Amino acid sequence: MWGIIATWRMAVEGVQKAADMLKEGGDAGDAIEAAVREVEDFPYYKSVGYGGLPNEEMEVELDAAFMDGDTLDIGAVAAIRDFANPVSIARRLAKEKVNNLLVGEGAEKFAHKEGFERKNMLTDRAKIHYRNRVKEITQQEIRPYSGHDTVGMVCLDTKGKMTSATSTSGLFMKKKGRVGDSPVSGSGFYVDSKVGGASATGLGEDVMKGCVSYEIVRLMREGLHPQEACQRAVSQFDKELRERRGKAGDMSLIAMNNKGEWGVATNIEGFSFAVATENLKPVVYLTRIVDGKCVHEPATQEWLDEYMRTRTAPLVEK
Amino acid sequence: MWGIIATWRMAVEGVQKAADMLKEGGDAGDAIEAAVREVEDFPYYKSVGYGGLPNEEMEVELDAAFMDGDTLDIGAVAAIRDFANPVSIARRLAKEKVNNLLVGEGAEKFAHKEGFERKNMLTDRAKIHYRNRVKEITQQEIRPYSGHDTVGMVCLDTKGKMTSATSTSGLFMKKKGRVGDSPVSGSGFYVDSKVGGASATGLGEDVMKGCVSYEIVRLMREGLHPQEACQRAVSQFDKELRERRGKAGDMSLIAMNNKGEWGVATNIEGFSFAVATENLKPVVYLTRIVDGKCVHEPATQEWLDEYMRTRTAPLVEK
Repeated sequence: MWGIIATWRMAVEGVQKAADMLKEGGDAGDAIEAAVREVEDFPYYKSVGYGGLPNEEMEVELDAAFMDGDTLDIGAVAAIRDFANPVSIARRLAKEKVNNLLVGEGAEKFAHKEGFERKNMLTDRAKIHYRNRVKEITQQEIRPYSGHDTVGMVCLDTKGKMTSATSTSGLFMKKKGRVGDSPVSGSGFYVDSKVGGASATGLGEDVMKGCVSYEIVRLMREGLHPQEACQRAVSQFDKELRERRGKAGDMSLIAMNNKGEWGVATNIEGFSFAVATENLKPVVYLTRIVDGKCVHEPATQEWLDEYMRTRTAPLVEK
Repeated sequence: MWGIIATWRMAVEGVQKAADMLKEGGDAGDAIEAAVREVEDFPYYKSVGYGGLPNEEMEVELDAAFMDGDTLDIGAVAAIRDFANPVSIARRLAKEKVNNLLVGEGAEKFAHKEGFERKNMLTDRAKIHYRNRVKEITQQEIRPYSGHDTVGMVCLDTKGKMTSATSTSGLFMKKKGRVGDSPVSGSGFYVDSKVGGASATGLGEDVMKGCVSYEIVRLMREGLHPQEACQRAVSQFDKELRERRGKAGDMSLIAMNNKGEWGVATNIEGFSFAVATENLKPVVYLTRIVDGKCVHEPATQEWLDEYMRTRTAPLVEK
């Protein structure tokens, strides 16, 4: 069996690419890296890699992680600027004995020394988004922060090796140096080839309060199906946050076990994800919450067309 | 009931200070902050705050975190330079709605704007340690990395509020921007006032592979005594790492539940910790591993005298 699952519609081209590799016996590390890079490279996705929206100083600061479920090796970068593929730097760091999580200027120095090419990650389109947002904030129409569409993936190859990876530009208009859950083990991602893996997208500050990815893997270890594990972890933690804080941040989790079974749970409307396995062609699903349970339906062609149309529509400066 | 437990002998003066506050009905946030600051301010401790050992570029980069077990609010900084009390910046960040984890230059900007005073954290003594180590590395006598004596604490106040906090200068000779487990929720620290809290010291890169603090709190939620929870989490994860990787990094965990019961487990020889509760005067314990189980004995006066003598002994440049 092989499989790959990823947060959001934006991941489906990467999932397709990974599926092509996995069915030929490709490695779960290579496949997940290729899949995440595909998302990082597409300039119209505002929350990952090139074209990602900047922080309050109009700098694109990126977070990414890679975990190997065989060895539990982790590599991660946070608040790194001007490198095209943070996930590849993260994977490179996973091979180090120590110094596996690097942030800011130190991460940039490492990447440079390792031969990764610098790239100005701030697109003209992202600048228009930034300037429009500054005007909106000045007019007090909206709160400054929104958008946290991290790409998070879990992958299983035919040898039974599992990996997890994340990549994000984080909260739009975040403070310089702000780091969310994406490079944080157990929160943004976790994987153990003996069991399975999970990854998160949503408000990192809240996901970190519950180590939700670790918890889902743990529940799968106890024997729960990935869908049941995701549902239980998300529902319980969402309830816990609401009880204590009056509200819970957006939180959507994807998971796959080492049999290629998968699950998804969210506390928001409109979550989409992409998945492919030996038995399932790459497909985009939409999740609806019905009576407190997450139900997944394949996206219609109409929805898919509309998605790409709005993402690539001309952007006007206000 | 009130109580506070902390990693390493170096924490006992802080634990004493916190105990004085807690027995007068002081707040668990105020008490733990005061306790950690005490450790940060003492120039002879080489692994926390002022006098902490530098990274490979001879910069002291500090990590710290604060968590409130009532609200699950988290604040943390990583790779921050030249501020005296990272734990206080972390606690300040815990009050923000988002942007709770800040790294590098962004963390420094925030701290500066919030009025925290800059302080050159590199002492003459730390410079001698650095230069000696550079010579030792050149002579290939030792591997460059060692020393990861994070201070990690868990605190309970008379109102039942619990907190956790950490502070460290991280691995001596770490790469610039390297971040360990100390500012990472679930790995370096975790606390839930409904249950209890835990905190870690050791090789952050390995602690992060197992989210060990979260796991201990989870086991306490299932009803385990803190000692049993620490012992089980550390033993199982140490075994897991050895099986997969042939070795396991140093790992020592402290925990306290909301009844003021406490526990400690380690996979190294020579771990010390400090604890005080309503029923127990501030005391330093040493942990020995006997037949795979951790046994704690109060440190002798001779050991305590020797500890301070070696810490403050004149340091000669090689």
